[in-house]
Amino acid sequence: MSNAASPEQRIYTSLRTFDFPELKLENGEVLNEVRIAYETYGELNSARSNAILIAHAFSGDAHAAFYHDGESRPGWWDSMIGPGKAFDTNRYFVICSNVIGGCAGSTGPSSINPATGAPYALDFPQITIKDMVNAQKLLVEHLGIEKLYSIAGGSMGGMQVLQWLVSYPYTVKSAIPIATTARHSPQQIAFNEVGRQAIMADPNWNGGNYYGREIPRAGLSVARMIGHITYMSDKSMAEKFGRRTKPDQEPTKFHADFEVEGYLRNRGDFFVRRFDANSYLYISKAMDLFDVSEGRPLSEKFYELEAKLLVLAFKSDWLYPAYQSLEIVSACKIAGVPVTYLEIEAHYGHDSFLVETETQSRLVKNFLARVDAAE
Amino acid sequence: MSNAASPEQRIYTSLRTFDFPELKLENGEVLNEVRIAYETYGELNSARSNAILIAHAFSGDAHAAFYHDGESRPGWWDSMIGPGKAFDTNRYFVICSNVIGGCAGSTGPSSINPATGAPYALDFPQITIKDMVNAQKLLVEHLGIEKLYSIAGGSMGGMQVLQWLVSYPYTVKSAIPIATTARHSPQQIAFNEVGRQAIMADPNWNGGNYYGREIPRAGLSVARMIGHITYMSDKSMAEKFGRRTKPDQEPTKFHADFEVEGYLRNRGDFFVRRFDANSYLYISKAMDLFDVSEGRPLSEKFYELEAKLLVLAFKSDWLYPAYQSLEIVSACKIAGVPVTYLEIEAHYGHDSFLVETETQSRLVKNFLARVDAAE
Repeated sequence: MSNAASPEQRIYTSLRTFDFPELKLENGEVLNEVRIAYETYGELNSARSNAILIAHAFSGDAHAAFYHDGESRPGWWDSMIGPGKAFDTNRYFVICSNVIGGCAGSTGPSSINPATGAPYALDFPQITIKDMVNAQKLLVEHLGIEKLYSIAGGSMGGMQVLQWLVSYPYTVKSAIPIATTARHSPQQIAFNEVGRQAIMADPNWNGGNYYGREIPRAGLSVARMIGHITYMSDKSMAEKFGRRTKPDQEPTKFHADFEVEGYLRNRGDFFVRRFDANSYLYISKAMDLFDVSEGRPLSEKFYELEAKLLVLAFKSDWLYPAYQSLEIVSACKIAGVPVTYLEIEAHYGHDSFLVETETQSRLVKNFLARVDAAE
Repeated sequence: MSNAASPEQRIYTSLRTFDFPELKLENGEVLNEVRIAYETYGELNSARSNAILIAHAFSGDAHAAFYHDGESRPGWWDSMIGPGKAFDTNRYFVICSNVIGGCAGSTGPSSINPATGAPYALDFPQITIKDMVNAQKLLVEHLGIEKLYSIAGGSMGGMQVLQWLVSYPYTVKSAIPIATTARHSPQQIAFNEVGRQAIMADPNWNGGNYYGREIPRAGLSVARMIGHITYMSDKSMAEKFGRRTKPDQEPTKFHADFEVEGYLRNRGDFFVRRFDANSYLYISKAMDLFDVSEGRPLSEKFYELEAKLLVLAFKSDWLYPAYQSLEIVSACKIAGVPVTYLEIEAHYGHDSFLVETETQSRLVKNFLARVDAAE
């Protein structure tokens, strides 16, 4: 996490929205009256050539950097985005939008279905990573940008980066997929599936119809706890918690004896206050369905590409292991796409791209400085 | 899994029970009217010197080998136990008992509390690995055995092996802890904790009082699904399922698109028919509380030991990684205890000790043949 800035150092931002009448989806359905929530940091230059799109991860949102009025914590990638930082807002115009299907301002299953006047719930169509990217493309066009200087993101954000490269190869000058994959392995699908099962096992989920009623708090909390374990590493958990025990404060059996148990319960409880259970189902399913190469060798999808790539993985990330990043690197080399790769020596597991950002910052900064250079 | 024997090759066995009036527990409580369910394979020799105790893993039971009348699947370690097999029943008298706290014949939370005439539920005391071992010791004495030729087990079975060595160092000639640890890491605790939370989140769990009513099927199923992912490896899942999709048979959204999803759901559904949710809570907690060296260097606990050890780990086992087995090996070396170690090249993850038993069989057979040899 970035250290919080002192109040006088803080730069403030606020969420904006872009509405458009419809989005044709990959499955043939049409989503009507679509809203995309987004934020921007820095200024678009007159040539409109300095825009960088940041794609957020599974449970992220459009608030990637700076502060919202009245809040003491900055956006989720504030350590990477700002004046003088990796995504230097003195040089670049940085955009981040909430994905379609989400629950932080963009149209998702908790939004009102214009056809019924009630929340979509499970009438929301199954969106895909490609649909998320198509919505982002409309936003980027709306902002008057024809070509992105770069697009970057970790985890599911990296999937969107890869999909941009394949869907819109001529609109991207460079790309930074981090701790990601061209498609989920069965193990990754399995962890997502257990999270979905935990939500759907909660009677309050009620077939997705819980808006205005008791939410599936317990199920969503269990799903988040599973996620948290996979985002950390054995080593980082050992360093953070060891086998330290908590003082027994609860009168029941099966209380949280160990600090790690209390931590997970707290993370689960916190998550249910900010995230919609149906969005969890839709977005996790979109990740599982994602296969950017559509069963073909990934290199074939990169033949038309004129972008440069920086691909990053983390040694302790067992959820998105380095071999998945190396497949992207191999595809670039086969397709003749310039690529730089590093498996960073970080020990925080998958979350390293969010919390251990020093080496990552150097690599991103150096890479961005050379996007326009001849190789 | 061992291949099923043809009906005429099958050796039959049946569950036996040993009842004793009380078991003093590690936490000071006393468990009254205790029953231990067990099976034996082979014959005890006249010197009573050929007995091997097998300790089962988390969800195992006393039925380790041979067939029960009317069943077409043998016990869970039939590939390892039998005539000519690693635990050769032509030479050894093999014993396996269900752990205290379990739900397959031994006294556990689903047993009748003699003080109330109703199932214990959460009035069952929190048992530990040491309590399980103390109960096994009473069974072994009951069978007239003073010294075990060997004791072996994988995962939680290996924890019991280690506890035997520490609690009863003079009663064991050799020991085989497999895919195990001297204590759970925070990550291992965390996976167990999420399983417990999934069970306790199910309204049918009802504070543990569900006997004779609707059981917490959904919660227990989710817990088992989490377990299954951790028992397999990324690679074995990729080989078993790939990203193959299932024909869509379910009318709802968030059906099981991928084979791996359907597999996990089936495993969960199957498990709830044979395992008690409260036993899940008690036994998983016993594993988390286990620390055989009680915060001291493990080697100090081995100083009095006169046994030989064979320690086995598996390369693809990310739940009980090899470094945890190596701690046991180091402790043996420091304490001057003869130890053989191998990290076996198996790719089935933690479940390798159950399903990839060829190399393991050779190592166990060779080791057992030399228990009485001078080193």
